[in-house]
Amino acid sequence: MTKPSFAVVLSGCGVYDGTEIHEAVLTLLAIDRAGGTYRCFAPDRAQMHVVDHLTGEPAAESRNVLVESARIARGQIRPLDAFAAADFDALIFPGGFGAAKNLSSFAVDGPGCTAEPAVEAAIRTMHAAGKPIGALCIAPALLARVLGKVDLTIGSDAGTAAALEAMGARHCPAGHGQVVVDKAHKLVTTPCYMLESGIGQIADGAEAAVRAILTLLGR
Amino acid sequence: MTKPSFAVVLSGCGVYDGTEIHEAVLTLLAIDRAGGTYRCFAPDRAQMHVVDHLTGEPAAESRNVLVESARIARGQIRPLDAFAAADFDALIFPGGFGAAKNLSSFAVDGPGCTAEPAVEAAIRTMHAAGKPIGALCIAPALLARVLGKVDLTIGSDAGTAAALEAMGARHCPAGHGQVVVDKAHKLVTTPCYMLESGIGQIADGAEAAVRAILTLLGR
Repeated sequence: MTKPSFAVVLSGCGVYDGTEIHEAVLTLLAIDRAGGTYRCFAPDRAQMHVVDHLTGEPAAESRNVLVESARIARGQIRPLDAFAAADFDALIFPGGFGAAKNLSSFAVDGPGCTAEPAVEAAIRTMHAAGKPIGALCIAPALLARVLGKVDLTIGSDAGTAAALEAMGARHCPAGHGQVVVDKAHKLVTTPCYMLESGIGQIADGAEAAVRAILTLLGR
Repeated sequence: MTKPSFAVVLSGCGVYDGTEIHEAVLTLLAIDRAGGTYRCFAPDRAQMHVVDHLTGEPAAESRNVLVESARIARGQIRPLDAFAAADFDALIFPGGFGAAKNLSSFAVDGPGCTAEPAVEAAIRTMHAAGKPIGALCIAPALLARVLGKVDLTIGSDAGTAAALEAMGARHCPAGHGQVVVDKAHKLVTTPCYMLESGIGQIADGAEAAVRAILTLLGR
């Protein structure tokens, strides 16, 4: 039996303007530990902005999402336009503000947001192929935007949950390391840093998400 | 008994010009899983240079080591000048070219390198206090530079091993997930990405290093 193959979509490198680094690395580790393989992708576009992670303030700089994501992927990454659903068994989105700033406009537009076209295409083609999709932290907003009426979790934040429900999703509260599985749509979501967490709890969440995806794959 | 406390020294954010991100995150995870606590530090100085991690080429930019390291630490980081050996049970350096470009000049000067003054002070004060120090990947070069005649490993690369021996160290070959422990000097080193590795092997190395440090602490 071939190893289950995951496409991992990154959105930059750093929680405040890109991918949450712990969630990304621990997703890659969870895939590897579960016997899977992965390839990383990111959109080739400018970040919405750059945030100084020491001060939390925006910086007068411009950075590219694909180039910065390559830091997490050690250079082994492809533009999301090159993603093909036929090449993978599953798709997974780690979180971080990048999901809401660079993969969609959720951070600015809330339930009126749009998804980056390559993100929308990746979600739609995997969903149409009946293949599982995972999303951590705030990334479930992408699934609500593109797929609408699905079950998901971002943990317990009432304002964010209401915004997802305004896009048609049903929000199910979840705690540390817990996943919400929408079996009909083959979606797996988990809160990670949407809850106040230690890094071990992020590893728990990433492992639970990858295991739930493998279950949906019948592995 | 209080939890063992680790100071983790970062050198930027990305394998080619800063901290190797997987090694840093998996070190933090290993500390947490072993019941320890951590605080991150980095020198407040300009990076030697910035490398585009997609192309591998230098970029015409300037970035600050502390500010970029804050991406890995989610903003919870202090300047290395503020480090005090009295506050911690152990010190640990993940790898990445940042250890050889920003924490020392090893990448440029080889065995004729100098260590960043705050790095040298942190190593000397911990060593003088009889507290353990760990180093992953290429970071053992810092221990060779500052402490000289110690036992360590960077895996099996002959050229790098020779450069460390030229600084007075004794190089001991090691494989994936293996550590070399210098009991007299309380040093723990492991090769990580100095060997061709999958991410699971990096987690193995980080866990083994943290466990060996706890053993030196009598935990």
